[in-house]
Amino acid sequence: MKFCSNCGSPIQHGELPGEHLPRYYCAVCGTIHYENPKVIVGCLPIWEDKVMLCKRGIEPQYGLWNIPGGFMENDETVEEGAVREMTEETGGNVRVLGLHTIYNVLPVNQVHLHFLVELVDLNYSLTEESIDIQLFKEEEIPWREIAFASSRFALKRYFADRQQGLRQTHVGTYKTR
Amino acid sequence: MKFCSNCGSPIQHGELPGEHLPRYYCAVCGTIHYENPKVIVGCLPIWEDKVMLCKRGIEPQYGLWNIPGGFMENDETVEEGAVREMTEETGGNVRVLGLHTIYNVLPVNQVHLHFLVELVDLNYSLTEESIDIQLFKEEEIPWREIAFASSRFALKRYFADRQQGLRQTHVGTYKTR
Repeated sequence: MKFCSNCGSPIQHGELPGEHLPRYYCAVCGTIHYENPKVIVGCLPIWEDKVMLCKRGIEPQYGLWNIPGGFMENDETVEEGAVREMTEETGGNVRVLGLHTIYNVLPVNQVHLHFLVELVDLNYSLTEESIDIQLFKEEEIPWREIAFASSRFALKRYFADRQQGLRQTHVGTYKTR
Repeated sequence: MKFCSNCGSPIQHGELPGEHLPRYYCAVCGTIHYENPKVIVGCLPIWEDKVMLCKRGIEPQYGLWNIPGGFMENDETVEEGAVREMTEETGGNVRVLGLHTIYNVLPVNQVHLHFLVELVDLNYSLTEESIDIQLFKEEEIPWREIAFASSRFALKRYFADRQQGLRQTHVGTYKTR
């Protein structure tokens, strides 16, 4: 961030009265430019005793397996965003079962929310974002080829919950200090 | 948003290849300026059969009652942010019990996360942000003077859960379309 998005002047960075953290701000028009974490919304799709994974057709982590997800947009709920990402990446039809995981990814300032969803049918298909889509039993999961820590967290917690007959929401963090 | 924060040129708004929504973008340096929802983190503080409410000493909703909360910052987890807001607004010491509610506030593009926490002791005090702090039994809650819908949602769900002996995470939305 180098220029004020309100007036185009070069911006400053430092302490400000009333602010407990250093901020980017514009000394010309007075605008404070806050930076906050972004929300990633996604789904863990279930079919019978299997979960759906998608092989990523885009960077980052091209060619690795993932559960569907992406940046939450304005004007949508977390649930709507999760289902939208599911549709964009797989074309699949789902029923939302509940919020499954919240996962902090501190190095990139993201909060990942994954909903547990069940596939309504097997009408899904490859998309620009997914170069392969497969259903995996627990013992078939390619653990070493999972794209993101939040997906691994969601999968691990799902299988542990299933074994105990539980359905609950989990909170986790990548890179705890 | 009027100027590019990367190069200072006036920005455009419209369709872009590979983007499923219109975006702000800079035609000079090529930067896309995404706008995404922000995360509010907070606590619902419990002491015996009471909940803690704070009378807001800042706008918006000055003078109305609220549970502690505010914008999540970079470099913190959702739980750390919730406890930080609790400390800033009340100086209180808490133990986190779990994630209680996620609440979409569509008109302002916010996602509110509230943790259920219990007060460790009664060492809390007024702050610049809180001009009064009180503990309320359920029947004492000033429902008509609660500042935000997300606080009302968290309180209602807490009392309903308590009556049934449940502890669970709830997802809600203000202004469902």
